[in-house]
Amino acid sequence: MRPSARSPDQLRTIQLQPGYSKYAEGSCLACFGDTQVLCAATVEQRLPAWLRDSGRGWVTAEYGMLPRATTQRTDREAARGRQTGRTLEIQRLIGRSLRAVTDLKAICDMQIRVDCDVLQADGGTRTAAITGAYVALHLALRRLVELGLLETIPLTDEVAAVSCGLYCGQPVLDLDYEEDSNAEADANFVLTGRGGIVEIQGTAEDAPFSERQFLDLLALAKKGAADLIAIQRAVLGLDAPA
Amino acid sequence: MRPSARSPDQLRTIQLQPGYSKYAEGSCLACFGDTQVLCAATVEQRLPAWLRDSGRGWVTAEYGMLPRATTQRTDREAARGRQTGRTLEIQRLIGRSLRAVTDLKAICDMQIRVDCDVLQADGGTRTAAITGAYVALHLALRRLVELGLLETIPLTDEVAAVSCGLYCGQPVLDLDYEEDSNAEADANFVLTGRGGIVEIQGTAEDAPFSERQFLDLLALAKKGAADLIAIQRAVLGLDAPA
Amino acid sequence: MRPSARSPDQLRTIQLQPGYSKYAEGSCLACFGDTQVLCAATVEQRLPAWLRDSGRGWVTAEYGMLPRATTQRTDREAARGRQTGRTLEIQRLIGRSLRAVTDLKAICDMQIRVDCDVLQADGGTRTAAITGAYVALHLALRRLVELGLLETIPLTDEVAAVSCGLYCGQPVLDLDYEEDSNAEADANFVLTGRGGIVEIQGTAEDAPFSERQFLDLLALAKKGAADLIAIQRAVLGLDAPA
Amino acid sequence: MRPSARSPDQLRTIQLQPGYSKYAEGSCLACFGDTQVLCAATVEQRLPAWLRDSGRGWVTAEYGMLPRATTQRTDREAARGRQTGRTLEIQRLIGRSLRAVTDLKAICDMQIRVDCDVLQADGGTRTAAITGAYVALHLALRRLVELGLLETIPLTDEVAAVSCGLYCGQPVLDLDYEEDSNAEADANFVLTGRGGIVEIQGTAEDAPFSERQFLDLLALAKKGAADLIAIQRAVLGLDAPA
Amino acid sequence: MRPSARSPDQLRTIQLQPGYSKYAEGSCLACFGDTQVLCAATVEQRLPAWLRDSGRGWVTAEYGMLPRATTQRTDREAARGRQTGRTLEIQRLIGRSLRAVTDLKAICDMQIRVDCDVLQADGGTRTAAITGAYVALHLALRRLVELGLLETIPLTDEVAAVSCGLYCGQPVLDLDYEEDSNAEADANFVLTGRGGIVEIQGTAEDAPFSERQFLDLLALAKKGAADLIAIQRAVLGLDAPA
Amino acid sequence: MRPSARSPDQLRTIQLQPGYSKYAEGSCLACFGDTQVLCAATVEQRLPAWLRDSGRGWVTAEYGMLPRATTQRTDREAARGRQTGRTLEIQRLIGRSLRAVTDLKAICDMQIRVDCDVLQADGGTRTAAITGAYVALHLALRRLVELGLLETIPLTDEVAAVSCGLYCGQPVLDLDYEEDSNAEADANFVLTGRGGIVEIQGTAEDAPFSERQFLDLLALAKKGAADLIAIQRAVLGLDAPA
Repeated sequence: MRPSARSPDQLRTIQLQPGYSKYAEGSCLACFGDTQVLCAATVEQRLPAWLRDSGRGWVTAEYGMLPRATTQRTDREAARGRQTGRTLEIQRLIGRSLRAVTDLKAICDMQIRVDCDVLQADGGTRTAAITGAYVALHLALRRLVELGLLETIPLTDEVAAVSCGLYCGQPVLDLDYEEDSNAEADANFVLTGRGGIVEIQGTAEDAPFSERQFLDLLALAKKGAADLIAIQRAVLGLDAPA
Repeated sequence: MRPSARSPDQLRTIQLQPGYSKYAEGSCLACFGDTQVLCAATVEQRLPAWLRDSGRGWVTAEYGMLPRATTQRTDREAARGRQTGRTLEIQRLIGRSLRAVTDLKAICDMQIRVDCDVLQADGGTRTAAITGAYVALHLALRRLVELGLLETIPLTDEVAAVSCGLYCGQPVLDLDYEEDSNAEADANFVLTGRGGIVEIQGTAEDAPFSERQFLDLLALAKKGAADLIAIQRAVLGLDAPA
Repeated sequence: MRPSARSPDQLRTIQLQPGYSKYAEGSCLACFGDTQVLCAATVEQRLPAWLRDSGRGWVTAEYGMLPRATTQRTDREAARGRQTGRTLEIQRLIGRSLRAVTDLKAICDMQIRVDCDVLQADGGTRTAAITGAYVALHLALRRLVELGLLETIPLTDEVAAVSCGLYCGQPVLDLDYEEDSNAEADANFVLTGRGGIVEIQGTAEDAPFSERQFLDLLALAKKGAADLIAIQRAVLGLDAPA
Repeated sequence: MRPSARSPDQLRTIQLQPGYSKYAEGSCLACFGDTQVLCAATVEQRLPAWLRDSGRGWVTAEYGMLPRATTQRTDREAARGRQTGRTLEIQRLIGRSLRAVTDLKAICDMQIRVDCDVLQADGGTRTAAITGAYVALHLALRRLVELGLLETIPLTDEVAAVSCGLYCGQPVLDLDYEEDSNAEADANFVLTGRGGIVEIQGTAEDAPFSERQFLDLLALAKKGAADLIAIQRAVLGLDAPA
Repeated sequence: MRPSARSPDQLRTIQLQPGYSKYAEGSCLACFGDTQVLCAATVEQRLPAWLRDSGRGWVTAEYGMLPRATTQRTDREAARGRQTGRTLEIQRLIGRSLRAVTDLKAICDMQIRVDCDVLQADGGTRTAAITGAYVALHLALRRLVELGLLETIPLTDEVAAVSCGLYCGQPVLDLDYEEDSNAEADANFVLTGRGGIVEIQGTAEDAPFSERQFLDLLALAKKGAADLIAIQRAVLGLDAPA
Repeated sequence: MRPSARSPDQLRTIQLQPGYSKYAEGSCLACFGDTQVLCAATVEQRLPAWLRDSGRGWVTAEYGMLPRATTQRTDREAARGRQTGRTLEIQRLIGRSLRAVTDLKAICDMQIRVDCDVLQADGGTRTAAITGAYVALHLALRRLVELGLLETIPLTDEVAAVSCGLYCGQPVLDLDYEEDSNAEADANFVLTGRGGIVEIQGTAEDAPFSERQFLDLLALAKKGAADLIAIQRAVLGLDAPA
């Protein structure tokens, strides 16, 4: 029995609120249960130095967490003067996930930066961030099409992320904080609309896990990601691809 | 005529949403028009070293702004590795404002830290922060009373803040970003429920202003602060003091 | 009775020593009693990136304090690796004060940077810094006129600063450290030669103060600033404006 | 055909040199082809504050790379003043991998810190680091047994790591730099002597990969890890477990 | 011919002003010509952690330079967020020089920290700093004797420093900035009242120098240091040792 | 009797391994007994901004130490976020030493950067670094000649470094860690193949030393440097200059 009484393959209540921010070119408030992540995409007509004249644009992400997003307050990174390893690791993951479905050549001369800020953290902040960041990115690119700066939306696939874990020996989908703190293993999957794998990060918390267990987690993740992508399509007003 | 078509002494639509955060001991989302500041109070049973054994507790604040809270994205302070002078100045102001109405002796051995994070910035973020932080602080202290840790809420007065400025030569209340960017002078007032002055910060943007002009701003501020304090009382479920 | 036996509206002994530094384009050692601030203006033929091609020049300030300027040694900011919020707040104030009386268009392509370093701190370091920085700036600009780089000194007004406070319930002018540590309220005023207000920063230390009290402080400040500006004129060899 | 002419499931020449460092409690120079990582374990009789009185000890790792370990020089992190996200991510991974096979209760009151410094980088530095760090840790723990501070070596399993990738569409084992730079997908596997999975990190570089492809990589990794663990046993003078 | 028209073995005009600072336990403004260094000694009844219970006290120094001490403004180290290598090197040298003549066992439980801040820099700031810091230290220790905290002044010798260099092929004493910038070799000598050597730092600027040349510089330094120590004795009101 | 049983004027076993690094343009592993320093020279076709268009190239150095190079682990500078004063001092010394024998005009438009990383530290790391860095620099320059980018190797002399000290009252050459920790005085000498002096750094550890003692150290250093330079020539395949 999960603490939330969900069935093993059941996502939390998912809400993706597009257009949450007044100023960003694209934005989405992604809620996975009590986890809330505000994703805001900014289009810059200026590339980092190492990409200039490469014929490619860039998509990147930054991640942060409000100090009291968590049950216990965590120190403000700006006050400590450096981002933690965890923060850097997560924002690198978000950036890679978005680039995996973006045609960078089509946005040459542009950088799109997606800020993912956790307003409330009840587990799964990185997966909510990726899932919401995709919506924010889509909306920002759609605006560029509307402005005539791009001809079509340069996305080659859809992307969403979900966590799975072994909780009391059982594979479960979309862990909340209570489950996450007690899971024997924990894996994050970034998957695409066409069923491809973008990233897999699996970690044994306590004792190593087996290949069999890992494949169970992957199966759950495929179901969860398909559900998330359906929600993304709905809020973006898109039909499922034929 | 103000860009927002407000009358000179009219506040923007004010919303104070108490209990916005699931985890904080007290919280409030303060909205002054499109400006949104999430205020979250954390109670710590541990004082900074320089206050131990002083017989006094402490109230302090931290301030931050999401990178895309603004029309143009601003750099993330955590990524730059230091807080700007503006940030430090504002968080010091919030802390002083709260301490001015708190009986620090009554909370000896405790530090209450109020995080004020700007989700969206349309001018007046520091005044919204102070006004919301007071509500968050009140709620956190009320909880300490409910838990039996304090006998009464150790607040000696109420506090709210509002900006005023000279816009096209006219004194106006509660500037939004468009007004703020074009004001000839700009002042922030932190005032109490009993009519006392906690802080005044007045700045000529372009040319010096006169004492007469300054007194006009102060008069507007007194009206605005009284309105804000009435709203604070309402959301806290308090009657006006006799 | 004030600790220094001064009357309530009496400044400390003021000394402004122009040309104190051998190398700076303009300089002044400003002494307010035992408070000593060395102000040195540097003219740079190069603007910060965000001002280039704006048609405006810039005046800015930096503030520092020698570690043993104070009764108790304070940590060296360079060794700690960051400037405190207080330092940043003060140097921003000095910069704004100087810009308020400078015709920035007239010095386009130039940045003038005024370093204000406290050699000894007995209260009122920011007001001594502003008062001395104006003299240093004037001298640097005068040199630019002498070199034929400017036609006239591009200052639109004169500026000086002074603190006032409520000490034992009484409004007093130009607080020294002993008064400052025990004042109920403390305000800094930056005023111009023509009687305009550039900045007002008033802070209740303990309990809120009233509008009446604030107006008393402002009246004292006007007298004090007029005295300071007369001294500035004298050391600069200027007549009072007609 | 691989650039190195290896067969798809062939490791590079592996050398693990135990006792490389004169001073460390345990050490190993791990060479995977031209990749060289010096691993040195330090035993400290002192825990980080957050673990004191927890009844558990700790194993952690730090990772660094000499500036000219690479074909192009990279900036020295100490000179830049911060470790990159990549560095932090790798050292967190090494630490988790070692803790997964260590009985932390058995080393309560001790912290073992393994420094992994890359002398030369030809791809696979993190997998060489983990594989060498296990040897260094084993040797340090063995010394504690020899000194009578522990009764038995508190390791619950053996651990090694290897990378696999899709190179020209084919799954290959233990990528060198040339392969790594051109791989379509890249995965690092941390596996144990008993066949358990400790960590999986798979990343699509260009386009998403399929579950089938991923399982091929995992199969290669299991073979590679078994070979590495056999080498670890040999240099540690251990028989294979029954 | 030297630019200053001094003879090769002639010091600049030396002024040591003891008691320059109002607050420091001991202080001295050291002027070597136009070079001005304010030295202020602080006595702390608290040792750095690594010296506690060692039976020894500590003497240390910090060095800084006002941004406009130099002909061209240099960046403020506090604003840059780190001290330069030059600064760290100089303050380490000053500390070693003072410790070489102090009986650290006699001041156990105390740390004396001497801040040396350059108000104006015309060459030889480190030698002026050492020479002035000795006076500040002596005065601080004398005060401890007067307060009954020490029985005698725990100095085992006197110390002063002077630079020498090869200028246009000729050995000269006490280089000013113009000479220093053009010298072929440059050496700093820290010498004691009894003729001992505490530190020698010699550097070829352009081409290596010979042992013969080095001995000429040492001979000049001995004369210069003797003169400086005589001035130290005079301002401290001491007779020459028998 | 020295702890290592060497005679007073005897170097440790010296090994200079040229070409140690696979990627660097020139490299050398310098071993002075158990002290091991990896020196790697990088040629950059790009000068620091302040040298552009000066008609001169540049040679510089960086120094680092692996955390467990020492008997007790030292903190990783990259993790602490700043290089220590000792590190900065040493790398400045290495750079000056190399520049003293390089014709900077002949390498205009190029910067050569020599990284000196201590793998193991048993005293004398800075002298091993200079001695090895010269070999790495020579090899990098030779490669530039082979590539036709330079006509001749632009070195004007050879350079090596060695430490000497007073140990138990006796002058000894090339101190190891045990001697270094107990020496009464300690001096580092950077000398050239033609017998010139590039740098002298002598420090009294405990009590001042005499001119006589210093000259004894210098005599030892001349012998030691001549031996080191002979070894450099041998590994570089050079004859002694006529």
